[in-house]
Amino acid sequence: MKLKVKILGIDSGGKPFVFLNNSDADEINVTASERVTLQSKKTISAIVNTSSTIEKGSMGITEEIRKSLSLKHNISIDVEVAPFPKSLQFIRNKLSGKKLLSHEIKEIVQDIVDGNLSETEISAFVTSLHIDKLDLDEATSLSQAMVDTGKILQINKKIIADKHSIGGVPGDKTTLLVIPIIAAEGFTIPKTSSRAITSVAGTADRAEALMPVEFTMKKMMGIIEKANGCIVWGGAIDLAPADDIFVKTEFSLHIDPLLLPSIMSKKKAVGTTHLVVDIPTGRGSKMKTPGEADLLARDIIELGKRLGIHTHCVVTFGDQPIGNAVGPALEAREALEVITNRENIPDLIDKTCNIAGSLFELLGKKNGYALAKKILESGKAEKKLREIIKAQGGNPKIMPEDIPIGKHFYEVRSEKSGQVLWIENRLVVEVGRAAGAPKDKGAGIVFAKKIGDAVKKGDIIYTVYAEKPHKLERAKSALLTQPPIGIGKKTDMLIHMVKESPTVERTFVIDR
Amino acid sequence: MKLKVKILGIDSGGKPFVFLNNSDADEINVTASERVTLQSKKTISAIVNTSSTIEKGSMGITEEIRKSLSLKHNISIDVEVAPFPKSLQFIRNKLSGKKLLSHEIKEIVQDIVDGNLSETEISAFVTSLHIDKLDLDEATSLSQAMVDTGKILQINKKIIADKHSIGGVPGDKTTLLVIPIIAAEGFTIPKTSSRAITSVAGTADRAEALMPVEFTMKKMMGIIEKANGCIVWGGAIDLAPADDIFVKTEFSLHIDPLLLPSIMSKKKAVGTTHLVVDIPTGRGSKMKTPGEADLLARDIIELGKRLGIHTHCVVTFGDQPIGNAVGPALEAREALEVITNRENIPDLIDKTCNIAGSLFELLGKKNGYALAKKILESGKAEKKLREIIKAQGGNPKIMPEDIPIGKHFYEVRSEKSGQVLWIENRLVVEVGRAAGAPKDKGAGIVFAKKIGDAVKKGDIIYTVYAEKPHKLERAKSALLTQPPIGIGKKTDMLIHMVKESPTVERTFVIDR
Repeated sequence: MKLKVKILGIDSGGKPFVFLNNSDADEINVTASERVTLQSKKTISAIVNTSSTIEKGSMGITEEIRKSLSLKHNISIDVEVAPFPKSLQFIRNKLSGKKLLSHEIKEIVQDIVDGNLSETEISAFVTSLHIDKLDLDEATSLSQAMVDTGKILQINKKIIADKHSIGGVPGDKTTLLVIPIIAAEGFTIPKTSSRAITSVAGTADRAEALMPVEFTMKKMMGIIEKANGCIVWGGAIDLAPADDIFVKTEFSLHIDPLLLPSIMSKKKAVGTTHLVVDIPTGRGSKMKTPGEADLLARDIIELGKRLGIHTHCVVTFGDQPIGNAVGPALEAREALEVITNRENIPDLIDKTCNIAGSLFELLGKKNGYALAKKILESGKAEKKLREIIKAQGGNPKIMPEDIPIGKHFYEVRSEKSGQVLWIENRLVVEVGRAAGAPKDKGAGIVFAKKIGDAVKKGDIIYTVYAEKPHKLERAKSALLTQPPIGIGKKTDMLIHMVKESPTVERTFVIDR
Repeated sequence: MKLKVKILGIDSGGKPFVFLNNSDADEINVTASERVTLQSKKTISAIVNTSSTIEKGSMGITEEIRKSLSLKHNISIDVEVAPFPKSLQFIRNKLSGKKLLSHEIKEIVQDIVDGNLSETEISAFVTSLHIDKLDLDEATSLSQAMVDTGKILQINKKIIADKHSIGGVPGDKTTLLVIPIIAAEGFTIPKTSSRAITSVAGTADRAEALMPVEFTMKKMMGIIEKANGCIVWGGAIDLAPADDIFVKTEFSLHIDPLLLPSIMSKKKAVGTTHLVVDIPTGRGSKMKTPGEADLLARDIIELGKRLGIHTHCVVTFGDQPIGNAVGPALEAREALEVITNRENIPDLIDKTCNIAGSLFELLGKKNGYALAKKILESGKAEKKLREIIKAQGGNPKIMPEDIPIGKHFYEVRSEKSGQVLWIENRLVVEVGRAAGAPKDKGAGIVFAKKIGDAVKKGDIIYTVYAEKPHKLERAKSALLTQPPIGIGKKTDMLIHMVKESPTVERTFVIDR
């Protein structure tokens, strides 16, 4: 039927919504969240909302639809019930426990990218992948489909190195050190990274305290030509756009069945041939035990094999933050202090050299750890980082003290003597985010004590930084409610008492 | 933070949506599909959409929110990140395979009814109930929670009878006959029924061809006082409103894990003490085999026991439509012809007497089938139906020919001789809906032949009725593409060939 276009003037986050009067929807034979096709110069499909505020004979459209069809107010266009998307039948097959075939997964991912599936349908798909799991065949198909529905970086090199962390540990600025170490040795390493979603800082947020990180694909290629490597925000270059949609759903539900396809599709899309994946393991990390981490590593390595990416995994200690600083600017400072050899942060340096070292060995070098350490200590890594900063349009002479951090701070002192028994990553994240990170780049936490350190009553244990006084207050109230550090004697045995049905709060990290 | 209200003038089907500028959302620390609290005269929570078309400092609101808070354009109100709904934690527990406790289910259902959970979250919940199943404890809690979050019919009777069909068979007008038979014997039977969602006609649609069916709870009570029974649309009286939300999600996904709680909560909400549930079984029904039907019956009976409803099930033949007529008005005509003893439709009468009879026996009567048949044949059932029609404000003297049916019709004749081998319910539904039903009450199909009937070349097999010529054409094209009736010799063995990966089209009936 013909309906008159009413431009609502709102966008709906990428989803192609139309608002129909209930009676028109009945006549077309659709209900809310079903699909119609709109025919103007071209034909697109849209998801129906029914609304009593839209007049009979009219149809409200969002900006997404207005732009896609170049529609004007009050013109009439053809609206009909859309043919049933085949992909939905495939999702239903998964819901009834069937394994999905490669072409079925391709169709689902294509329809998700094209906006043809509703929130309800995408959520059911993600939930079914979580509950019924996806096997390695499905993970391979999904990775490939996510590559095929996005852009691809084309660099004319036989070997492309990369590193990735599945995330979960605060303060992990390892990437800022690993990339220049690898690139300094002459390898190409086109690192794309993400911004924080649930954490205090993503690698893109940290890097942005040193240099611009948003580029087009073309500019990214220019940077790599100049510096052998880059550290850019992946969100700007449309690699595996399906993942951005999946991540929203996974974030809502605190599940991440697509972890592996998400990681591997992005590596495949930049042409990675050799990859090291870091799996932080321990209290408050995604993987709680080395056994769990090994099982994940097995799948990552096999998936890499199927996609033509030679992959090793590094299972690392994730019980507490890496280094001392947590927060975009504070972490960038710390990385710069280490790469300029002004500061010795042993855990950060050890992790960096293990990851860079294993990548070197994967690339055919011997004694990778020692090589990485030499490059770091010799100043070659610093030189390379400054080349990358320059190529990305930052100040290549930047020093740690040039990076602005929050002016407002609060020092937390120990109320008793003993030693640091634990640091709860989840609560560190809560305090850091309450202080304003990642939006306020200068907000965060700097630890003066880590697990095992001796503490005297009155010692500073950590300092919270904020850009805005009211956010500092918010952070203070968070850390007072649930202290992120436990100090006591080695023999203190009680974790906590449970006297009634407890509310279980779990860590969930979706940043990847 | 304070944001200025912009009234968008659209509603969003009951969901409390706000549209925030991306930068304001960042500042509040929420992303799309998370929740904020809005504080004005009262505090409500709303689901966030981020939009680049909303100015910084402003917030677009839907009609749902405008009405709920009586907001005016351009006034400023407080918007803050909402405390995390506990119910979402419970949904996550189910996603990780945990059985849900009673108070957890109550919280989930309450939040769904209050609009505090997003489409994504509700979909994940429904999907997890489908994949991981819900056990009888969970089904009991869910039924009770759905009763507790809706209205309750309070009739001062010790015994309240009811019948229900899990649906799935076209042409099933049994309820129009069973209710008057039971009420004629002096029992109270407050029947609420649904409109068609995926079928050609729901009981409420059929009944509406005879009398009004939309009433408030109070008016419904008045009708029952007068006539001992009623046949009203359940949607108007807010019994178990959670179910209306679940049904939307189940419909999108073609799954119905909530079938049992949905049925039983509505029975409990009207105070049912004695219930017979019809389980149509066979090709194109929800249950394909008597064994499957028995397993469902076992759960229904046990769930009834836990909710204090004495329940029996009747497993009935569902391979083909019941009687000859399919479509709201055509079915109402057929029911009226049978109850006035003008027509003998043996399968319809047998099914009616089995259901009414088993309900009589459950209520303590002997020889229920014979009693039901006597009431039907004696005219007592007709008298009672006319009392109900009168009490509901219809014309108590209505005769079959007074019910208008579609003026446009198409007779389908057999192209060969043989016998009717099968009737595909799914295709009957497609033809009926293409002809305009349930929206066009006079549209539908009348069968001249049923399974096993001998057919000569040129015989009329069925006639399609429509109110509008273009819908008759649409139905013709549907029945030519996929004929709903198979005619052939008893020895024809081939069902169909499969030469490449087939697209599986399944029957899905959500009407209940």
